[in-house]
Amino acid sequence: MKKINLKEKFDLFSDYWNPKIIGEVNGHDIKLAKVKGEFVWHNHKNEDELFYIVKGTLIIKFHKEEIELNEGEMLIVPKGVEHKPIAKNEVWILLFEPGSTKHTGEVKSKLTVEKYEKI
Amino acid sequence: MKKINLKEKFDLFSDYWNPKIIGEVNGHDIKLAKVKGEFVWHNHKNEDELFYIVKGTLIIKFHKEEIELNEGEMLIVPKGVEHKPIAKNEVWILLFEPGSTKHTGEVKSKLTVEKYEKI
Repeated sequence: MKKINLKEKFDLFSDYWNPKIIGEVNGHDIKLAKVKGEFVWHNHKNEDELFYIVKGTLIIKFHKEEIELNEGEMLIVPKGVEHKPIAKNEVWILLFEPGSTKHTGEVKSKLTVEKYEKI
Repeated sequence: MKKINLKEKFDLFSDYWNPKIIGEVNGHDIKLAKVKGEFVWHNHKNEDELFYIVKGTLIIKFHKEEIELNEGEMLIVPKGVEHKPIAKNEVWILLFEPGSTKHTGEVKSKLTVEKYEKI
């Protein structure tokens, strides 16, 4: 058993839109990601997804609204709900989602990562 | 869909060792708790448990070691591992665990809460 310091983990990488796995709880992955720019529209058919903002401001667009998330705020996007994250500046996020979750859902994009690195 | 601001949620309560549910992701509860003093030795037979420290310093005792967690640090306690949280001063924690998880495991104590409030 080893404690996980979020700041130290974020310092280990600098690439965008490439979530890293930092832990596992009951079949769910805890992932960290740095993001900047626009992600693709996508949804997760079977998985709710939790976004928690560690640093910066993330906008999550939905078809009928958009929600701005700042440091210390979280949003749970229910399964099946199409969304598009946008970061004007660099944002550090923590994700909590089932190990089966693909970050672009069923959408294939140049941003799609097939296998997540563990750090 | 509504964003959750952790600080605002923590401002809604002041009792210790009484986790509140702030959200649900794929059958897992996200809970917040304020703790101070010593909790009981217990384990969760079937559930891994994630502790994330939002404010303060929490010590988690195990039979062969103890781990000190500070703000921005997390620990995943695997199912079945007996542990005892201790907070010398008030600590704010976020817990992530299956909805079925009882905070004192199978141990009945005066601290045991049978039903968690949603806030």
